[in-house]
This record gives sequence, structure tokens and C-alpha cells, in this order.
Amino acid sequence: MEKYREVGRQVKRVDARDKVTGRAMFTDDLCPKPCLVAKILHSTIGNGRVVSMDVTEAKAVPGVVAVFTCFDVPDTKFPVAGHPWYAASAAQKRDVADRKLLDDRVRIYGDNIAAVVAEDEVAANRALRKIKVEYEEYPVTYDPREAMQGTNPPVQEDKPDNIVGHTLAVTPEDKLKAMGYSSVEDAVRDPKYHHFAFHAFTGEQSQAHIEVCVSYCYEENGKLTCVSSTQIPHICRRIIGQALDIPWGSVRVIKPYIGGGFGTKQDIHFEPLNAWLCHQVGGRCVKLELSREECFWDTSGRQPKDFEVEASVGDDMRLHARSIKAWSNTGGYIHHGHALVLNSVNTFRWLYHTQEDAIRCEAWTVHTNGPHTGAMRAYGVPEGIWAAECLMGDIAHDMGWDGVEFRMKNAITPGYVDEFSPSNTISYRTDGLRACVERGKQLIGWDEKRQEYAHQDGPIRHGVGVAFLVYKTAVAPFALETSNCQITLNQDGTFQLQMGATEIGQGADTVFCQMAAEAIGVRTEDIHIVSTQDTDVAPYDPGAYASRQTFVSGTACKDAGQKMRRRILELAARLYPDFQGELDLRDHAVWDAAGNKVVDLPDLALEAYYNLHKTDQISTRGQATVHQNAIVTGCTFCDVTVDMPLAQVTVNKIVNVQDNGRLMNPKLVEQQMHGGMAQSIGFALSEELLVDPATGRVRNATLLDYKVPTAMDVPELIAENVETQDPMGPYGNKAVGETPIISPAPAIRDAILNATGVKFYEMPMTPQRLFEGFKREGLI
Amino acid sequence: MEKYREVGRQVKRVDARDKVTGRAMFTDDLCPKPCLVAKILHSTIGNGRVVSMDVTEAKAVPGVVAVFTCFDVPDTKFPVAGHPWYAASAAQKRDVADRKLLDDRVRIYGDNIAAVVAEDEVAANRALRKIKVEYEEYPVTYDPREAMQGTNPPVQEDKPDNIVGHTLAVTPEDKLKAMGYSSVEDAVRDPKYHHFAFHAFTGEQSQAHIEVCVSYCYEENGKLTCVSSTQIPHICRRIIGQALDIPWGSVRVIKPYIGGGFGTKQDIHFEPLNAWLCHQVGGRCVKLELSREECFWDTSGRQPKDFEVEASVGDDMRLHARSIKAWSNTGGYIHHGHALVLNSVNTFRWLYHTQEDAIRCEAWTVHTNGPHTGAMRAYGVPEGIWAAECLMGDIAHDMGWDGVEFRMKNAITPGYVDEFSPSNTISYRTDGLRACVERGKQLIGWDEKRQEYAHQDGPIRHGVGVAFLVYKTAVAPFALETSNCQITLNQDGTFQLQMGATEIGQGADTVFCQMAAEAIGVRTEDIHIVSTQDTDVAPYDPGAYASRQTFVSGTACKDAGQKMRRRILELAARLYPDFQGELDLRDHAVWDAAGNKVVDLPDLALEAYYNLHKTDQISTRGQATVHQNAIVTGCTFCDVTVDMPLAQVTVNKIVNVQDNGRLMNPKLVEQQMHGGMAQSIGFALSEELLVDPATGRVRNATLLDYKVPTAMDVPELIAENVETQDPMGPYGNKAVGETPIISPAPAIRDAILNATGVKFYEMPMTPQRLFEGFKREGLI
Repeated sequence: MEKYREVGRQVKRVDARDKVTGRAMFTDDLCPKPCLVAKILHSTIGNGRVVSMDVTEAKAVPGVVAVFTCFDVPDTKFPVAGHPWYAASAAQKRDVADRKLLDDRVRIYGDNIAAVVAEDEVAANRALRKIKVEYEEYPVTYDPREAMQGTNPPVQEDKPDNIVGHTLAVTPEDKLKAMGYSSVEDAVRDPKYHHFAFHAFTGEQSQAHIEVCVSYCYEENGKLTCVSSTQIPHICRRIIGQALDIPWGSVRVIKPYIGGGFGTKQDIHFEPLNAWLCHQVGGRCVKLELSREECFWDTSGRQPKDFEVEASVGDDMRLHARSIKAWSNTGGYIHHGHALVLNSVNTFRWLYHTQEDAIRCEAWTVHTNGPHTGAMRAYGVPEGIWAAECLMGDIAHDMGWDGVEFRMKNAITPGYVDEFSPSNTISYRTDGLRACVERGKQLIGWDEKRQEYAHQDGPIRHGVGVAFLVYKTAVAPFALETSNCQITLNQDGTFQLQMGATEIGQGADTVFCQMAAEAIGVRTEDIHIVSTQDTDVAPYDPGAYASRQTFVSGTACKDAGQKMRRRILELAARLYPDFQGELDLRDHAVWDAAGNKVVDLPDLALEAYYNLHKTDQISTRGQATVHQNAIVTGCTFCDVTVDMPLAQVTVNKIVNVQDNGRLMNPKLVEQQMHGGMAQSIGFALSEELLVDPATGRVRNATLLDYKVPTAMDVPELIAENVETQDPMGPYGNKAVGETPIISPAPAIRDAILNATGVKFYEMPMTPQRLFEGFKREGLI
Repeated sequence: MEKYREVGRQVKRVDARDKVTGRAMFTDDLCPKPCLVAKILHSTIGNGRVVSMDVTEAKAVPGVVAVFTCFDVPDTKFPVAGHPWYAASAAQKRDVADRKLLDDRVRIYGDNIAAVVAEDEVAANRALRKIKVEYEEYPVTYDPREAMQGTNPPVQEDKPDNIVGHTLAVTPEDKLKAMGYSSVEDAVRDPKYHHFAFHAFTGEQSQAHIEVCVSYCYEENGKLTCVSSTQIPHICRRIIGQALDIPWGSVRVIKPYIGGGFGTKQDIHFEPLNAWLCHQVGGRCVKLELSREECFWDTSGRQPKDFEVEASVGDDMRLHARSIKAWSNTGGYIHHGHALVLNSVNTFRWLYHTQEDAIRCEAWTVHTNGPHTGAMRAYGVPEGIWAAECLMGDIAHDMGWDGVEFRMKNAITPGYVDEFSPSNTISYRTDGLRACVERGKQLIGWDEKRQEYAHQDGPIRHGVGVAFLVYKTAVAPFALETSNCQITLNQDGTFQLQMGATEIGQGADTVFCQMAAEAIGVRTEDIHIVSTQDTDVAPYDPGAYASRQTFVSGTACKDAGQKMRRRILELAARLYPDFQGELDLRDHAVWDAAGNKVVDLPDLALEAYYNLHKTDQISTRGQATVHQNAIVTGCTFCDVTVDMPLAQVTVNKIVNVQDNGRLMNPKLVEQQMHGGMAQSIGFALSEELLVDPATGRVRNATLLDYKVPTAMDVPELIAENVETQDPMGPYGNKAVGETPIISPAPAIRDAILNATGVKFYEMPMTPQRLFEGFKREGLI
């Protein structure tokens, strides 16, 4: 493996001090006060149409500046999803525009139908209560398979069957014929093989980020400026431009530190409305901050998904054929559309496969009157892996096979290329999975525990479980991957690093500093990163999603750093021509091949700025258009105690071992993994937005009712890595951000199965579902 | 002359709307509130030493956070002048470091000896009053020629004779010998020629900018950040680094819109103290805002200067020999040092000269216990031209010659190269002076008025006067001229323009947009300028002074624009190879030589960002190291009414006609000229900081006592230009900013002489001085 000096070093987070001391400034800290406050009126029906609205009394509330209804806004639709844009030559790839700033067509409970701008929050809220609304109401549909039969009217006018996307990937006929089948169904049901089938479900997890969604807008210097807690400032700029039908260049978006996003803030939910309201009141500063409750149901959580899985397996422990059908409930609006469930069925397909197996993956994304859904950490992958691991766990359990051995017999192997992907770029190049599994087994004590827990009775039982994971970095080849970056030499020999990519709490800034330092040949401490992205000056990068930044933006960062190194050495060669051999930059100085110091970097920097003959403030741009991606694999082992009468699962220990390629900063990787593992515990056991199917209304939109794991719920977490050198990563890296949330939940499921013999398919496995399961199986 | 499309067009100021509507944000608008407030304790003696200080009671004032005295600050000295820095190879050119954050050695009345940081201004001011100071007092010296004899102790320890600088430029001996003289003195006093001699004086004018000096500092993202109303953010960053002895890269300076500077804000007076105080209180936000009174005497006004002038002139109206001795009173601190008076004697030398004349220019800059002095609009030139024009006016008057004809016989001619300058780069290449004078004569009605006013008596008389001006753009060849700039293509085909140069109210942002548009080949309206300079991301440029920006920074701007144009055409050629001949960018599209549209610019921009094969956010850096400069010439004609018994001068009309090279924006030039003319009226008649010579205390530090001309005092102003094409200006331009303040004051003096026959040599010509003059001559 390559040797690095800065990359891989456990440097302190560059934002550690500010965040620990409370010095770090977030959107609301920066918002000038006093400023105008905007509040949104939400529909109190789940499907229907606003017939009329009376705002007379609302306008009369003292302190109210303006009231706007769905009848006042421009008839312009825009997409909200944080995806790349496409030029005319690829316009068909653009996201669907289905949102209006405010809409008289109510598609979901709490839809945005009016907005108030007032001098303060009290006045705004008072005015909201004074708005009188007359609705025409339609029946609510929440079940996607029911919605696919058609609703009257359809949720979105242009989709009579409510289907947003439908895809099918099937093993080609010639291969099936060679196997002796006419269809995958035949292969699945071939009686020579063991047959398995089940229905699985994953619920709508909420990102539950600590900082609520907040932005403020003002007009200055000829620009409509929006300061927002967003993961994707450059995309936000574009979407505001689209929504308000103004040139994108006249929009400026500023992204300060943000207190968590996990995908919510990869949608541009409110910034366009905020910007429009600001413009309506003459460009005065207007803040739009969602309440905690609004964050739960007026932003997009993880898409709930139904899966029908069937499979056949041979006595040789080899998967023979599999079929997965997936229905994803995108709610009233398209948001990220079909991409999420594609990720589910793709990773279902990638993680386990054999050379000879047959597969059929069919997926639908469907509109219902359910709440918004969109991107959430790992973007469909945890759901697909849930389905895959329910299958593998069931087979191993029923066949009496060792779960690890069985999985290893079928797990993805190096050289794998996804035959269904649009190009041949999705390939598994470097494999740490096998070593991860060995290490994981050892850390959990797999063999000992399987033996120890083999024969249990009584109400409280122990179990150990396993699940594997696969994850594809970045959005290529399905979508565009691009990044830009800029590095400028300071007078003191340090560097300014400007990324378009965003720090959203994950530690990206620190890792970029390390990468830039590595490329230039200086210390990470010599890099000053500009943490705030201001679209007026920040290089273009779409932002933080798809665990893409270290891989894609890191490539741009490395490019800029290497160019900077070259420019520095060129300048030294020009100014100090008396050197021997090739020049080298190290230890904050330029050296020649004979080991003579040519010049200290700070002195060279001063010459660059102030040389009387020729000045040259050295600044380099890095660019990346990335067509490749890397595949992360890994596994989770966990140990649980199940109290069946109490329907309570206690997770005692989780071991996550992953191949994330080279680690840029081991401590930050561990932090990411701890966070993902904790979030996966919530996903497994408690976190679900509960929706009333009759009204589409979210029932538990508070942090009291929506159960995020607390420090008390998180057990000993062991996060380890097997490092491999990915040839496509800028420094051999793959990705980390989203990967650790994937496998803990199914590993917990597997441990419960191990402890109790009960198969759960619905996630989260809440006490209610556990109780029903144990009851059904006669265990309580 | 070259033809331009955008340059020279009368576009609206880009900041017009924000400034007119009050939307533009200045430093104090941006300062988060509440924040800590710092206030400075000033000495109540004019020369001496702080022996001890008792801050016990001050610290006990509720709301006080910290009190620091001159005994608490680091023993580090730093320069405050806004000059370029020099690398080690030219370190001798660096400014002298003679300031400490707070100093126990009191050199001037009001010196900074302690500072309070408090929760609010009231607490801070209360605490200031509670600080007890014990001084050791020394006698105050205010006269520079007296101070040159030595003081005990010297004002600055390392200068026993208090002399900061002394220079002498004399016609070489061989030329004198050829003229038949052994010295210039001999030539001046040759009885074959008419001899003239006088003593002149120019007082300390204050910049009296509307926005007081204000900054606030906080620590974030590992940086000590200072938001300041400064003309020179990048230099401010460096000086804070020097003063606090921290790496410059760890300092960040942000410059918002500023409400006037005129040179005060080309000194870094308070930012280092503000930054240090902020760091002392743990990086909390601390604001330091000077009161209006402090702005008058704790920042640096125009250096008062004494001149001894002698000259001889022949019957042929040709100057024969001249000698000027100048003494500049820099006060207790060096600030801009000797550069100011050099500008005075140099422009004295340049404006009028003959091929055969002899000249001797000697200048001293001297420390006294007088108030701070430094850069002010035109930086020493108005003082030198005052001396030159007193001479020319006196000669014409006494010899009975026409003032215009006499001046024209001796005025600077094309091809002139300053023989005394360090290189041969100060040369007068394009001459508009002669045309300016013709036009000026016509506009004022010179010949008619000279005739009309020829024979007056009675107490109220009319006069018409003239003065010429010369001004050298930028600081080359004496100092470094460098600039950087960046242009980035937006997705909508507009452009982001990032200048390191600063908008300080003069209209620079607008002109840069025009230059960038001209170079790229688009409309000015397509350029979005980033008006705020943030040293973390703004390209390096030293800032606004020496009327350098359009000339020097404009060169960088043009360079970046031309590179952008090339990059756009290259991209179009690559993406759309089916074109004929050479590509051209115009009318917001790319065209081929056959007149076929290749692609619209917005579409090309989208391809640059989002092309699936290869993205490329086009961003170009422009750079300029400028070794040349341009010479502006021009003239002022004015018409006055003098009421001798009332000692009152009414300016009826001023005509300023200048050769500023090509005009980038005629309306903005006119505005600059109007402003300079008005400020020159104040300089001529009323504006002077009055200093008590016994204590060094400023007597009139309020806008009530310090008389700035109001709208009522400003007559009809006619500003016209004769355009020439300077080969060194990026678009044939020379400079505008400072030039219009130079010649109105001496033209008013000349008109008073014409009206009354009384020669005034001391400026401003206040009612007191006028009264004394008319009394002396027996006219009242």
C-alpha cells in the first residue's frame, strides 16, 4: 500500500475547538436580529384542494407584515431533491419539478398552503391561527400497492396510476435457458432447491438532526441571498433560481456550520419559499425556521418500503435464484424519486450472488398521501440490505448452517461487475470483506457464542447475529459526479483551502485539509480551510451526499494540491536557479536533490507576493469529473439479550468491521461508525414515523414520541477497519459516511432470531412488533 | 483612440440601489449584537511617560470584562501605514515599526495608554473615567524646524534629531556649470532674472469621513477575524499579524461597504488593538468604534507642511531656476513617513519646468508632539502644487503676465521623464493638458473676466484664478504595485468577479465590472461583483490608495477577463467542433466567422458545469505587477467674490478640466471630480485641525468646530475631461480618484490675488488669515 504522511494521520478535527466551546456559528447565530419571521400554514387534511382562504383577520394582527396564500404564488413548479443538474444534452435526467411554493392542491397532511411574514414569531403564529380555509376533501391513500391501482384524483395530475418509477432487472433469457429455466420464477421454485419466501417492511425513519431546518434571506448587492442550514448550497442556489424563475447567478447561498442533516438537508424544502417571501417584502431579512414538529413531517424521512422476497438455495450453501419486488412509498411528492428503491434492489443484488445464480429485481416507487420522504443516510441501501439479510438469516437458521460460513459462500467477490448497471464502472476492485469477517468473528467471539447460545429456554434469552453490507460510493454512473476546489498560498507559507464540498458535522473539512497537505507536501496544520460555502466565491461542488465527498471532492482537492506543489517548485526554480537535480518540497522548505535547502516556504511565499520584479499570488484550481466509484463492504456482529415477556431487546455489544479503503483519519472514521451504528440501533428497534392511514397525519412528531437512541441505549460499540487501497480513490479511500448505518439493524434482527428463533421482517422491531411475534410463536 | 463597448459606458453604479435604499451593510450593521465593547483611554498630556496606573476601581465597574494598560501589552512594535510589504530581498523598503498596541511613552496628546472591554459602552466609558494615571511630563514641541534641533528626550528613541527623512534632489553640477553657475542658489539669485521668494504653509486637513473608524473582532475556525471599515483589508491582515506576532495566515480580515476613507483608513490604527483585546477575552466578539472626536485626533490627517520657495524667471516668461525646501510635520509617529513630502516636492518639480532650468528640492519629515498625520486624498500633492501655484501666481501677478499664458510656457510637456526618479518610468506620455486649459478658459470665460475684473475698488471685489495640476498614478516605481483578481463563469452565463481591490465609495466595483465585461465581451450587467473583501477568499491586492485601482487592479481585471474569454471560446470549440473560422463571443453567444451562432452563452455555461463527459467550472485568475504609471494633468479655473471687511470668500464657480486618460464611466468620473472639488474648497478656506502648540491638543475635534463645506458652500461645479489614450492603462485610463482635490484650492488663492492683489501663502485661507492679510495690505 502507498505510504502517506498526512493522510491517515489522526489529526484533531479542525472545527473541534469551536464546536466544543460553542464558538461555532450556525445559521440562527448569524441571522441579524431583529429580523422578520415567516411561518407556514399547513393543511389540516391529507388529500384535497383549498377552495378558498380568508386572510382578512390574519392581516389585521399587529406586527403582521404580509400574508400570502397558495393563490398568490407564481404557478411555477420546481424539484426539491439535491441532485446534480444536467445541461440540455442530458435534460431527461433532471429531477421532476412537482413542488410549488404554496399549493392549493393538498396532497399530504400538513401541506404548505399559506405563509405569514411578521415582525416576530408571536405575531406570525397568531396570524396563522386567524387564516380561514375552506377545503374540498378527497379520500386518503397510504398504501403504495393500493395507490398503484389508481386514485381519483391521482396524487400528481400527470401520473394517473401514481407510479413514479418502475424498473425491472432480470437475468438474461440465454443464461436462464442455459440453467434450464424459462424464468427466474421457475428457478426460484425449482423443487430441487430449498425455497424461501417472505414479505419485509422498513418504516420511515426520521433524520432527527439536532439543528432544525432554518434559513434566512435578504437582498443585497443585487442578489437574493439565502443563508441556510443545507448540505447542498450550490444546488440550493439553482433550485431557488428555478423556483423563483430568476437567473441562478442572481442568487447567493451561504452555508455555515450545520447541526446535522443526514439527508433532510439534501432537499431544498423551504429556501425557495423563504427567498420569495423576502423578495415580496422588499428584500428585508426574513427568517424561516421550522419547529421541531415541522421537521418531523414537513421534511423528508426515509422512504418506507415493502419487499416481497423469494429465493432458492442449494445444499451446497449456494444461492440458486432470487426474486425481489419492492414498493417504495414516496408520499405526495417525488423528491428523490425512484433512485432510492433502486439503491435497495441493487445492493440486494450486489451483496450476495454466485456466478451461476438467477435474479429478478422489480421495483416501484409510488405516490400516496403519505408524508414527504427522501434521502436519508445510506439512501435506500439499509432497506435493501435488510431484505437481503432477512433472507440470509432465515436460510442459515432454517438450514442449520453457520450464518457466517453461508454468507461467505455467497458474498460479493473481487472482480464483480454489475451486469445491470448503465456502464461497467460498478465493480468490486479491492476486497477487505473476508478479513473484516474474520476480525468481526474474533471480536464478538462468534463461534463461542453461537455454541453458548445454542440451547436456551426461559423468557430471557441471548443471541448473537451477523449481517454484511455493501455500499457504492458517489452517484456515478447513474448521475454526474463533479467537484472543484481552490488552494491559495498565504504569505506565511500556509494555505487557504476552499472546497465546494460541505462540512455537515462528518469531519469533511479535516479530511480535506489532510488531503491537501498530503498533495502539497506540507503539514495538515498548515492548511486553513474555508468552512463556510458562499456560492459567490466557493468553487462548484454539489455538496454532501452519497458519501461522495472524500472520494469525488477529494479528487479535486488532491488535484489542486498537486498543482500547488508544482507551482511552488516552479517558482523556487525560477527565483533560485542555483540548485542541483530536482526540487522537493518537505519540512516547510524547498530542497534540491543534493539535500541543500533552497528556500524556506514562508520566505518563498513572501517572494511570491512581494517580489519587486514579478509578483504571483499562487492559487490553483482542482477539478474532478469522476466516472468511477468504489464499493465498500463490511459486516456487523452483535450480541443481544431478549426479554420476551417485556418485548424488550437489549443490545449488549456491536462490532462493525468495514473495508472503507484507506482511512483518511482513523479517529474520524471511528466517530462516523459510532454514529451510524447508534442510528442503526434506532432504525432497528424504535425509530419510525407513525402515520395515521386514514388521514396521512404523522402521530409522533416530537422527540418524546419519536424514539431516538440516547446514550443510555447505546452499548459498547467496536468499530474497526480493514484497510485496502482502492485504485480510484484519491488516496486509496472508498467512503465512510453512510456505510455504518447499513448492517447493524439486520445484525440485531439476526441476533434476535438466534436468541428466540423468531423471524422478524418488519423494521423497526418495536416492542409492539416483538410482542406480536413472540405471541404468534407461542413464546409468551 | 481604441473603441470600447462597455468601458466608457455610463452604467449605473452597481451599489446604487443598496446605498440609496439603506440596504447596504456597513461594519456596524454587520456586528452581532450584543457584543463586547472596547474603549481606549487617551493620555491627557502631550509628551511624557506613564509612570503608573491604578485600574482597581475601573475593574470594579459592573459590566467591565477586562482592563488592560500599556504595561500589559506585548513589547512589539508595528507599522500602521498601508503600504505594500517587501520580501527579505527588499526588506529595507518596509515601513518603520514604531507603534505599540498601548504605550507608556506618551508622544502626543491623546496617545493610547489603556483599554477597557465591557459588556456595553456605558460601562466601558465609566471604567475609563475610573482609571488613575500618574505621568512624568516633558515639554511639548510642535514646530518641525524647532524639533529638528533636537528634543530631550527625542520623540522616538532611535531618532535623536527627530528627523524621519531628508532628501535632496539638485540639478547636476555639469548642467549648472554649463548654465554658468556653481549652485542652484546662484541661479535663483542671478540678478539678470526676476527673483521671487516666499514661505508657504498647508495645514492639517482631516478626512472627516462620514463613517467613523470601526471594527469588530472574533475568533472562529482557528482564525482571529477582524471586520473593519478599512481601505486595505489585505494589509490590515498583515499588520494585525505583525502587531500580535502571529502568523499572517491565522488572521482574517473582512471589509464590508465603507462610508468614506480618504486615506485615514489606509492606516491600520486600531484593528491590531481590537484583535488583541478580542484574543485576551477568549475570542469573544469585541467591537472598537471611535467616537467622532477620536476620529479627528486619534487618526491621521494630512501632514502640515512648511515650504520655503525661491525662484527666478526670465523676461521670456521661462522659469530659470527654483529652490524648494519643505518641512513636513509627521507628529509623534511615522505613519507614511517621508513619502508624503516627497510627493509634494516631486509634483512641484514635475508640473512646471523648462529644458534649461535649474532646480533644488530639499525635504525633511520631522517628528514633533503634534497629532497623527498620514495619507489623505492626493497624498502630499495638493501641498506641493499649492507651493508651485503660489509661485506661478505671484510671478504672473507681479510681472503683469497672463497667468494661463505664463503657466503654459512652463508646463510639463509630452516626453517629460523625471530625471530624479529611481527608474525612467515616471514619464508624461499623453498630453491633454493643453486642451484642458483651452476648454477651461472657455468655460470660465477667462479672457473676458480678467478684463472685467482688471480695475476694481471698494470692499467687495471679484476675481478669477487658475491653477494647474499634475498627479502620478499608483506607487511605482518607488514601491511595489501588484494585484490579483478572479472571474468565475456562473451557470446562467453571468460572471462572478472577485477583486482584491476595494470599493470605498469611489465606484471601483462598477468600473471593474465594466472592465471585466469589456475583456470578456459581455455586458456589464452580466458581471456580479463580490463587493466585500474577505482575505480568506479575496485575491490579493493591497487596496484603495494612490488612485491605483483602475490602473493597476484594472490590469489584473482585464487579464482575468481576457483569460475567461479565451477559456469560453476554447470550450465552445471543443464541444461544438463544426464551426467556420475563428470563434467570437458577443451578444451573449459564441459565433463563428461565417456569422453562425455556435451556442448561447448560458447553454455553454451549463455544459461547462454539467457535461456528463467532462465538467469544468471555468474560473480564471488575473494578475498584474505594474512597473509603470500614468501622469494625470489638468487645471482649475474659478471665480470668486471677496468681501474684505467680512474676510469672506464666496466661490461662485469652479471649472475643473482634467486629462485622466480614457474615462471608464463618465458619470462616476464627474462624481469623483465634484467630491474632490468640494473637498478642495474646504482645504482652501476652512478645514484645518487647530493644534494648541503648548500641549499638542487638537482644539476643534468636532464637526461643529472643524468646518467641512456643506451643500450651501459648494457653488456650481463644472467637471470636464479631455480624453487621451494612455498606453499603460488597461483601457487607456490614467487615474481619477485623488486628482480633483489638487488644483481648486490654489485656483481660489489665485482668484483672491486677482480680486484683491493680496498674496496668501497659508492654507486654509480662513477668515482670520484673510483678515490679517487685507489688514496688512491696508485694504481694510
